Amino acid sequence: MRIVSGMRPTGKLHIGHYFGALQNWLLLQEKHECFFLVADWHALTTDYQDTSALKNNIFEMVMDWMAVGVDPTKSVIFLQSQIKEHAELYLLLSMFTPLGWLERNPTFKEQKEQITDKDIQNLGFFGYPVLQATDVLIYKAEKIPVGKDQVPHLEMTREIARRFNHLTKTSLFPEPEAILTSTPKIVGTDGRKMSKSYNNSILLSDPKDVVETKIRGMMTDPQRLRRQDPGNPDACNLFPLHTLYSDENLQKEVRLGCTSATIGCVDCKKMLLPNINKYLEPIREKRLDLEKDPDTVQDILNHGCQKARQTAQTTIEEVRSTLHLA
Amino acid sequence: MRIVSGMRPTGKLHIGHYFGALQNWLLLQEKHECFFLVADWHALTTDYQDTSALKNNIFEMVMDWMAVGVDPTKSVIFLQSQIKEHAELYLLLSMFTPLGWLERNPTFKEQKEQITDKDIQNLGFFGYPVLQATDVLIYKAEKIPVGKDQVPHLEMTREIARRFNHLTKTSLFPEPEAILTSTPKIVGTDGRKMSKSYNNSILLSDPKDVVETKIRGMMTDPQRLRRQDPGNPDACNLFPLHTLYSDENLQKEVRLGCTSATIGCVDCKKMLLPNINKYLEPIREKRLDLEKDPDTVQDILNHGCQKARQTAQTTIEEVRSTLHLA
Repeated sequence: MRIVSGMRPTGKLHIGHYFGALQNWLLLQEKHECFFLVADWHALTTDYQDTSALKNNIFEMVMDWMAVGVDPTKSVIFLQSQIKEHAELYLLLSMFTPLGWLERNPTFKEQKEQITDKDIQNLGFFGYPVLQATDVLIYKAEKIPVGKDQVPHLEMTREIARRFNHLTKTSLFPEPEAILTSTPKIVGTDGRKMSKSYNNSILLSDPKDVVETKIRGMMTDPQRLRRQDPGNPDACNLFPLHTLYSDENLQKEVRLGCTSATIGCVDCKKMLLPNINKYLEPIREKRLDLEKDPDTVQDILNHGCQKARQTAQTTIEEVRSTLHLA
Repeated sequence: MRIVSGMRPTGKLHIGHYFGALQNWLLLQEKHECFFLVADWHALTTDYQDTSALKNNIFEMVMDWMAVGVDPTKSVIFLQSQIKEHAELYLLLSMFTPLGWLERNPTFKEQKEQITDKDIQNLGFFGYPVLQATDVLIYKAEKIPVGKDQVPHLEMTREIARRFNHLTKTSLFPEPEAILTSTPKIVGTDGRKMSKSYNNSILLSDPKDVVETKIRGMMTDPQRLRRQDPGNPDACNLFPLHTLYSDENLQKEVRLGCTSATIGCVDCKKMLLPNINKYLEPIREKRLDLEKDPDTVQDILNHGCQKARQTAQTTIEEVRSTLHLA
């Protein structure tokens, strides 16, 4: 079974990316043919005004992918903008996409309201669900891992495939199905959603001392003002990290200690630190190796692009022939 | 100086195309470096639902171009869809094009009202001014021959170039200037604007007897009901053809004869026929030669595509490098 997934190159990834997507990729690549794309054209839809960090962001992200275990011998790791066929299929599919579908796209409406520091009212941003559909359809992916919030996009991809097939009387594009993945909300060090733009992230590549400093400075239960007050782990930003990194026994111990005020927040953080570091240490090590050898990373990307291009070319030839394009 | 112009491949061209555009192309190609493109992707924006005639339409049109004298040794004749770089630049420029510019596009508004037999409310049609801008900017054209009604499109092309240059702090794209060309309104045989879809056209490739039948059946001055009534050439659909094909003396003679009722409409048509045929005969002959040799037409297109691609590739490399795309 073929699977396509991707990420915008936003630079170094944080632990939210790991639990939200990468962890799942690692499972998928063991069983399926996976295409993982760096969606650099997508990054331009909102960040066309300043692209100076793009190349670096791509490298940082791909190194994180590989550091956590995305394996180029099992999966195709490639750069969207290197596969020109995406642009061609995007143009062709845009003919088959009614404006109304895009106008009703909930993400478009939502982001128009949320992103206020950048001018995103452009044709590229408006059309990006079609570009996303292209990324999937050009590889004839059968399954797509998506979080709940991305279901409308996948539905649009399915609708575009259906409309193309219907109007051309073919079954050229399979309608990809969702693999619904749980995307636990990872809270940042300040209590808001972990996000690069909030500067509240614990990065997969953060050195040990940086992780320690970040954890030490983390907000905990805001109601627990004094050490002797009992705390509420369910209202604490730190406790969810225990559920991700500490074993069940320790989780129980922490919960009991917190609610009975037998441990303080400083203790709780100290108990977390070795566990999170045990997790991050091998990632860090692998990443340092990759950083020392940028040529290998570039080679892997080149090789992935070559493989992706072959598949994309086969599909675009079929599309051209179906549409009677020369 | 470099010039870009193009036409949608609608099949065999009529005399309206000649006076509206081709006549001008012939003048331009003597003095400038001309790129003439077959806009087959544009054709898809409105006709994506049935593309079965596309290949044939392309060939018919290119043969007409060459039959009237568009010269592949002087100009680059090529197929838009063969130059993938157009699709890539289209995608990139779409990031730089505010939605508002497209929503205010007068042609979009107009065509939404006029085209009722096809569903054109799609992203491709909405974005086609950006595709048009791409066709021009990718060759860094300095001048564009346009009729009055196309001025808003050229203005948008200039605005897109300006915005790209401004945001990237470059002067990568020259802002192309208009060569305003007169586009005489050629009336069809039924008195409406000559148009393929009205089935009222005199084709450049019509055989002599077909032209005669069409001219004979043409509407004339609707007020001149009887032979003995004086006619009004300025209210007649036929007289404009005299102004295009007959010499000034004959035009005077016809005007006098019509307004004094000394000649009838049948006479007037007989006086036109040899003149229009004298004009069409060499076009017909050249076209018959081309029809016998489709390989040559294909070779010319291939050669043109090769030349166009070289230029397009140079531009897209500059754009990619400016935007820090790998």
